[in-house]
Amino acid sequence: MRPSNRTPAQLRSVAITRHYTRHAEGAVLIACGDTQILCTASLDEKVPPFLRGKGQGWLTAEYGMLPRSTHERMQREAAKGKQSGRTMEIQRLIGRALRSVVDLTKLGERTIQIDCDVIQADGGTRTASITGAFVALHDAVEKLLQRQLIQTTPILTHVAAISVGIYEGVPVLDLDYLEDSSCDTDMNVVMTGDLGLVEVQGTAEGVSFSRQDLNAMLDLAQHGIQDLIGIQKAALAAK
Amino acid sequence: MRPSNRTPAQLRSVAITRHYTRHAEGAVLIACGDTQILCTASLDEKVPPFLRGKGQGWLTAEYGMLPRSTHERMQREAAKGKQSGRTMEIQRLIGRALRSVVDLTKLGERTIQIDCDVIQADGGTRTASITGAFVALHDAVEKLLQRQLIQTTPILTHVAAISVGIYEGVPVLDLDYLEDSSCDTDMNVVMTGDLGLVEVQGTAEGVSFSRQDLNAMLDLAQHGIQDLIGIQKAALAAK
Amino acid sequence: MRPSNRTPAQLRSVAITRHYTRHAEGAVLIACGDTQILCTASLDEKVPPFLRGKGQGWLTAEYGMLPRSTHERMQREAAKGKQSGRTMEIQRLIGRALRSVVDLTKLGERTIQIDCDVIQADGGTRTASITGAFVALHDAVEKLLQRQLIQTTPILTHVAAISVGIYEGVPVLDLDYLEDSSCDTDMNVVMTGDLGLVEVQGTAEGVSFSRQDLNAMLDLAQHGIQDLIGIQKAALAAK
Amino acid sequence: MRPSNRTPAQLRSVAITRHYTRHAEGAVLIACGDTQILCTASLDEKVPPFLRGKGQGWLTAEYGMLPRSTHERMQREAAKGKQSGRTMEIQRLIGRALRSVVDLTKLGERTIQIDCDVIQADGGTRTASITGAFVALHDAVEKLLQRQLIQTTPILTHVAAISVGIYEGVPVLDLDYLEDSSCDTDMNVVMTGDLGLVEVQGTAEGVSFSRQDLNAMLDLAQHGIQDLIGIQKAALAAK
Amino acid sequence: MRPSNRTPAQLRSVAITRHYTRHAEGAVLIACGDTQILCTASLDEKVPPFLRGKGQGWLTAEYGMLPRSTHERMQREAAKGKQSGRTMEIQRLIGRALRSVVDLTKLGERTIQIDCDVIQADGGTRTASITGAFVALHDAVEKLLQRQLIQTTPILTHVAAISVGIYEGVPVLDLDYLEDSSCDTDMNVVMTGDLGLVEVQGTAEGVSFSRQDLNAMLDLAQHGIQDLIGIQKAALAAK
Amino acid sequence: MRPSNRTPAQLRSVAITRHYTRHAEGAVLIACGDTQILCTASLDEKVPPFLRGKGQGWLTAEYGMLPRSTHERMQREAAKGKQSGRTMEIQRLIGRALRSVVDLTKLGERTIQIDCDVIQADGGTRTASITGAFVALHDAVEKLLQRQLIQTTPILTHVAAISVGIYEGVPVLDLDYLEDSSCDTDMNVVMTGDLGLVEVQGTAEGVSFSRQDLNAMLDLAQHGIQDLIGIQKAALAAK
Repeated sequence: MRPSNRTPAQLRSVAITRHYTRHAEGAVLIACGDTQILCTASLDEKVPPFLRGKGQGWLTAEYGMLPRSTHERMQREAAKGKQSGRTMEIQRLIGRALRSVVDLTKLGERTIQIDCDVIQADGGTRTASITGAFVALHDAVEKLLQRQLIQTTPILTHVAAISVGIYEGVPVLDLDYLEDSSCDTDMNVVMTGDLGLVEVQGTAEGVSFSRQDLNAMLDLAQHGIQDLIGIQKAALAAK
Repeated sequence: MRPSNRTPAQLRSVAITRHYTRHAEGAVLIACGDTQILCTASLDEKVPPFLRGKGQGWLTAEYGMLPRSTHERMQREAAKGKQSGRTMEIQRLIGRALRSVVDLTKLGERTIQIDCDVIQADGGTRTASITGAFVALHDAVEKLLQRQLIQTTPILTHVAAISVGIYEGVPVLDLDYLEDSSCDTDMNVVMTGDLGLVEVQGTAEGVSFSRQDLNAMLDLAQHGIQDLIGIQKAALAAK
Repeated sequence: MRPSNRTPAQLRSVAITRHYTRHAEGAVLIACGDTQILCTASLDEKVPPFLRGKGQGWLTAEYGMLPRSTHERMQREAAKGKQSGRTMEIQRLIGRALRSVVDLTKLGERTIQIDCDVIQADGGTRTASITGAFVALHDAVEKLLQRQLIQTTPILTHVAAISVGIYEGVPVLDLDYLEDSSCDTDMNVVMTGDLGLVEVQGTAEGVSFSRQDLNAMLDLAQHGIQDLIGIQKAALAAK
Repeated sequence: MRPSNRTPAQLRSVAITRHYTRHAEGAVLIACGDTQILCTASLDEKVPPFLRGKGQGWLTAEYGMLPRSTHERMQREAAKGKQSGRTMEIQRLIGRALRSVVDLTKLGERTIQIDCDVIQADGGTRTASITGAFVALHDAVEKLLQRQLIQTTPILTHVAAISVGIYEGVPVLDLDYLEDSSCDTDMNVVMTGDLGLVEVQGTAEGVSFSRQDLNAMLDLAQHGIQDLIGIQKAALAAK
Repeated sequence: MRPSNRTPAQLRSVAITRHYTRHAEGAVLIACGDTQILCTASLDEKVPPFLRGKGQGWLTAEYGMLPRSTHERMQREAAKGKQSGRTMEIQRLIGRALRSVVDLTKLGERTIQIDCDVIQADGGTRTASITGAFVALHDAVEKLLQRQLIQTTPILTHVAAISVGIYEGVPVLDLDYLEDSSCDTDMNVVMTGDLGLVEVQGTAEGVSFSRQDLNAMLDLAQHGIQDLIGIQKAALAAK
Repeated sequence: MRPSNRTPAQLRSVAITRHYTRHAEGAVLIACGDTQILCTASLDEKVPPFLRGKGQGWLTAEYGMLPRSTHERMQREAAKGKQSGRTMEIQRLIGRALRSVVDLTKLGERTIQIDCDVIQADGGTRTASITGAFVALHDAVEKLLQRQLIQTTPILTHVAAISVGIYEGVPVLDLDYLEDSSCDTDMNVVMTGDLGLVEVQGTAEGVSFSRQDLNAMLDLAQHGIQDLIGIQKAALAAK
């Protein structure tokens, strides 16, 4: 029995709110159960130095947690003067995942800057960030099309992500904090709209896992991501 | 005529939402027009080294802006590796303002950590932070009382803050971003529940200001803060 | 009775020594009682990136304390690797105060860099920095005129600053360290040569203060600043 | 055809040299083709603060590249003043991988510090670090047993790692730099001595990958890791 | 001919002013021609962690230059967030030089912190720092004796320092900035009161130097240091 | 008797291995007894900003120790976020020493970056770095000549370095760690191929030293450096 009474293959309720703040070209609040993340996409008419003059764009991501988004208050990274290894790892993952569905040559010499800031954390912040940021990215690209800065969308397909794990011996979908902190294996899966794999990151927390475990988790992830992409589409279809 | 069509003495609409997130002992979203700030108060059963063994508590504050809370995206301070002078100045102000209404000797050897994180900015973030953080502080102190960690409240009175300024030659209350970026004088005022002054910080942006200007701005501020304290009380009265 | 036996409205003795060091275009030692600050103004034939090509100049300030300028040795900020919030707050104030009396469009595309370094501290270092730095600024501008790099002075009027406070219930002018560390209210006031207000920064240290207190302190400050401007003028009149 | 003329399932030649330097309790040079990494294990009779008094030990890892271990010189991280996100990600992976085969409660209140420093890089440095560091760890644990600081080994089983990928459409084992910089998918796999999975980190570089691709890569990885564990055993068997 | 018209063996005029500031236990302004350095010695009733409980004291030094002590303004190290290699090298030298004449076991478990801050620079700041700091150290030790915190002085003998060099082919004593920036060889020599060598740091700037050059420079240095020690003694003899 | 049983004037065995790694233009492992340092020289077709357009090149050096190159593990400087004063001092010395034998105007507008990384430390790492880096520099310059980027070598002569000291009252050559940590005086000497002095850095560790001591140490150093230059020449003569 999962602490949340969910079945093994059950996602938490997901809500995607577009235009959550006013200034960003894309601004999405994604809530997956008690996990709430504000994902913004900002347009910048420049590229980083290593891409100047190459006729292509760039997309990069940053991630942060509000100090009291967590059970115990975390030290503010701006006050410490450095980002943790975990933060760097997550923001690199978000950037790679989104770039995997963007044709940067169609973006022109501009940068889309993604920011994922965790308002409230209950497990799964990195995967929810990817799922939410895709919608913010979509909204920002719409702005580029409306302003006729580009003629065709650089977005190739959807991308979404979910965590899976082995909790008390059972493969389960979409771990919350209670499950995450005591599971045997934790895996984050990122897939595209045509269900191609973009990232698979599985980690044994205590006991190692088998190929069968891996396959069971991937099956769960695939179903979860199909659902999440449906939710993204519904959110984007709303005017 | 103010850009927002408000009268010179008119506050923006203010909404205080308590229990906005789950983990913090106090968690308040304050919205003043389009300015939205999440203010949390976290309890920590320790004091900083300079107070150890002195039989008193401490209250300190940190402030941050989400990178795209603003019109143009700001660089993330955690990524830059340092907080700006503006950030430091604001968080020092918030801390002083709240400590002015707390009897730290009644708090016991513990710290209340205030975090004010700007979700969306439209002027007046430092004063809204103080007004909102007071309510979060109040909720955190209630937790201490409920848990019988303290017997009497260390909170002496309310505290709230507002900005005033001279905009196109006219003293006005509660500047929004458009006014703030083109006003002649900008002043932040912090007052207690019995309308004692705690902080007065006035700055001439272009032309210097007179004693009459100062008095007119203080009159406006006093009325505005009376209203804000009323709103704080109403929020705290709701169950 | 004040610890220094001064009357409430009495300034400490002030001495302004121009040309205190050889290399800077302006180099002033200001002594206000036991507070001694070296204020230099350096010319730089560049502007910061945000002003390039805008046909105007810039003025900025930095502030530091020698580690043993104080009763207890303070850690050297260069060794700690960061400036404190207090330092940042003070150097921002000095820069704003001086810019308020400079027409930056008349300065040409160059920067005047002010450095205020506290040799010995006995209260009032931020206000003495402003009063002294104005004289250093004046000397640096004279160099620009002599070298015919500019034809008319960009300096609009004098600027000077003083602290006032409520000490043992009595409004007093020009707090020294003993007063500053035990006063109820501490206020820094910056005024121009025509007695316009540029900055008013009042802080209740323990008890809040009233509008009457504020007015009494501003009256004292105005008289003190008139005297300081007289002293600046006398110093600048000396050849 | 692979650039190195290897068959898809062929490892590069691997050489493990124990006791490569004198001071460390474990000191191993691992060469996988042209990739050369010095892996040391250092004993420290302390645990980090979060484990004090808990009766268990700790193992942590750091990773670095000599500035000219690479084709183009990389900036020295010590000179830049911070470790890159890639460095942090890798050293977190190495630490997790090794902790997965150590019973920390049997280690006593001490820390084993792993350092993996890349002398020469030609792809696969993070996986070679894990494979080599296991041998260094084993040697350090032997020292603890010889000195009778512990009575039974805390090492539960072997651990080794290898990269796999899809290169020009073909799943291949053990990517070198040429393959790594132009492959479609890159995956790092960490397995224990009983072939349990500890980490699976697969990333689509351009095109997404399928479940079949994933399985083909895992098959290759499993064979490669079996060989690497054989090489570890042979190295440890030598006196 | 030297730019200053001095003879090769002629020191610049040296002035040592004790009690230059009020707060430090030792506070000396040393002027060597146009080089002016404030040297303070501060007592701290603690030792650094590596010496705790060892029954001995410590002496350490820090060095800084005011930003406009030099011809061109230097960036403030506190603002840059790090000390330069030159600064670190100089403060390590000052600390070693002074420790060479102090019996740290006689100091008790306390630290003497030396600060050398350059008010105006015209060459020779590191050697003048040592010569001046010795006098500040002496005054601070007198305070310890007067307060009966120690019974016998830990100071074993005097220490002073001077620069020598080869300028236009001629060995000269006490280089000023003009000589220093164009000399062939620059050497800093630290000697004790009984003319033992403590530090010899010679650097060829362009052409290498011979053993004869070295000896000629050391002869000059020895005479210069004898004079400096005389000046130290005269300063300390004044009441 | 020296701990290593060497005679006072005896060098440790020295081995210079060229082409130790593949990527650097010069890559030398120098072993002096148990001290082992990897010295690389990297070509960069740029000069630092202060030399742009001046028609000359630059040479600079960095130094690092692998964390467990030493008896006790040292904290990794990249993880601490700053280089120690000792590191900065050493890398500045290496750079100066090598620049003293290079005609930078013949190098063209490019930089040679030297990296000296200590694999294993047993005293004398800074002097061995210089001796080894010269050979790496020579190999990198050969690459420039072969690629016809320059027509004549900018290298003027050899440069090598050695430590000398007074150990138990006796002047000795080439101190190892045991001697270095208990000697009275420690001196590093850098000389050119025609035995001109480039750097002399002598430090009294406990007792001061005399001019006779200095001369005896310099005699030893001169003989040692002659031998080292012979070893450099032999290494460079090998194909």
